[in-house]
Amino acid sequence: MIRAETVAIVGSGQVGTMVGSALVAAGSSAGIAAVELFDVDPGVAKASLALGGGHLVLADPESVLRADVVILAIPLGEIGTWLERFGSRLRPGQLLLDTGSAKAAVVSAMRVHVSAAVRAIGGHPMAGNEASGPGAAVPGALRGATFVLTPVRPDQAAVTWASALVTACGAEPLVLDAEMHDRQVARTSHLPHLMASALAAVAAGGGRDPSLTRALAGTGYRGATRLAASDSQMVAAFLDANREQVGAALQEFRGELDRLALALASGPVSLEAALEVGRAGRALVLGAR
Amino acid sequence: MIRAETVAIVGSGQVGTMVGSALVAAGSSAGIAAVELFDVDPGVAKASLALGGGHLVLADPESVLRADVVILAIPLGEIGTWLERFGSRLRPGQLLLDTGSAKAAVVSAMRVHVSAAVRAIGGHPMAGNEASGPGAAVPGALRGATFVLTPVRPDQAAVTWASALVTACGAEPLVLDAEMHDRQVARTSHLPHLMASALAAVAAGGGRDPSLTRALAGTGYRGATRLAASDSQMVAAFLDANREQVGAALQEFRGELDRLALALASGPVSLEAALEVGRAGRALVLGAR
Repeated sequence: MIRAETVAIVGSGQVGTMVGSALVAAGSSAGIAAVELFDVDPGVAKASLALGGGHLVLADPESVLRADVVILAIPLGEIGTWLERFGSRLRPGQLLLDTGSAKAAVVSAMRVHVSAAVRAIGGHPMAGNEASGPGAAVPGALRGATFVLTPVRPDQAAVTWASALVTACGAEPLVLDAEMHDRQVARTSHLPHLMASALAAVAAGGGRDPSLTRALAGTGYRGATRLAASDSQMVAAFLDANREQVGAALQEFRGELDRLALALASGPVSLEAALEVGRAGRALVLGAR
Repeated sequence: MIRAETVAIVGSGQVGTMVGSALVAAGSSAGIAAVELFDVDPGVAKASLALGGGHLVLADPESVLRADVVILAIPLGEIGTWLERFGSRLRPGQLLLDTGSAKAAVVSAMRVHVSAAVRAIGGHPMAGNEASGPGAAVPGALRGATFVLTPVRPDQAAVTWASALVTACGAEPLVLDAEMHDRQVARTSHLPHLMASALAAVAAGGGRDPSLTRALAGTGYRGATRLAASDSQMVAAFLDANREQVGAALQEFRGELDRLALALASGPVSLEAALEVGRAGRALVLGAR
């Protein structure tokens, strides 16, 4: 960034506050002149401001259109609506970035509603947690995190600008095709939400005694159901936005469970071999960390 | 405990070291005179000793039979073998306790191989983690943890004695029928191992690029696959020892996944309602914590 920019963040929940705080911290030395916050709930924007998520709160949704950079940190179900309403009113040379966890649908909507003269690009910070609201933002969560950028059109200026912004937040930009992103994230991030929810339902279900389940719920249960504590509406929105890939991932997952069920019925030696597949897979993925 | 007891722990891995350290810390004021360690691998027993898991290392497996209390902290697949070999040589009035995570099979084997004059009882500390070996024992992990005790026979003396020992370790005894324990633990502890393994296989599989999967593996993936890093032989042994209940839990889990897949295909409103079932279930189970 070579000049003093104003950044407007739409949505002051966990993600908006996380990104805003990182930009405030980056400050003028990174070319950030002001971080402006808008949320449909003014109380939420003020709470984010109080936590250092921005420099000022904007009173109306149209004000964000004046900023040099507009970042959409709203739930996936609301991004399309925002683009329909405001996308055509963005000015040439503005940067538009979102933070949703499913990218093909967002990028496609940007292509429809935003002119090619606007530097529009999809974004997904691989940080954050299962809680909601500005208070759930963890300071410094973006530091060292992967921040995926999914191009809308062949627009190197958008990629360069968004990469600089993301780097200013302390994150590592990773430019990726939206479909490729969605395919991977369906398996590493979206499917775990369905698993956690299904397990929580099984463990609590069947007329058993919740206090007994509680006494026997060790760290394994707590960790394995953690994602089930997420806001259901938010999760439903991103799973729905990526439903084809999530559905395919769910099918693969059920195939793996069938394999494990067969091994369970075949005895400990088969089961050990079947479990080794998962163990090796995790080691392969996390190996270098 | 009213007298100075010697406790012999068979198996000096994570669980044996965790229990041994707690008993060493409890010390003579809790009636513990000495904590003696035996492991088929003398190096492992020495490593546990060095970490404060006991007072001395026993050279041969028969020496443990002299202790007032014998605690079996060996993998589930080895408990039956130990009981076959040594169970009939335990003396009247000795306390025998194990630490395996499946209880019906252990309690049944104790009933076969150990005389009714021995105070035999099944045990399962709801603590520990997915790593192996004495170095993986977390000091203080038993503090406040539930320690399930599953009676072998109607023997109040065994329950009282084992409860006192468990309490000395800082844990909370919970006396429970072995079948009831196994049914619950299949859903809260054993099923999560299968889930984690299946997810790790899905995320790593299909000829995708591991370095890309790595870059996109956020905290969700890491947490959801954590249990897949466990020792496969150890996990296979306890899943096998509880295979009927684990199989039933897996069936219920697949039913919940079917429900979620249907909701995914029906749109975000249905999906949100389906996810709420899991969220409410988790809140019900963990609510009071």
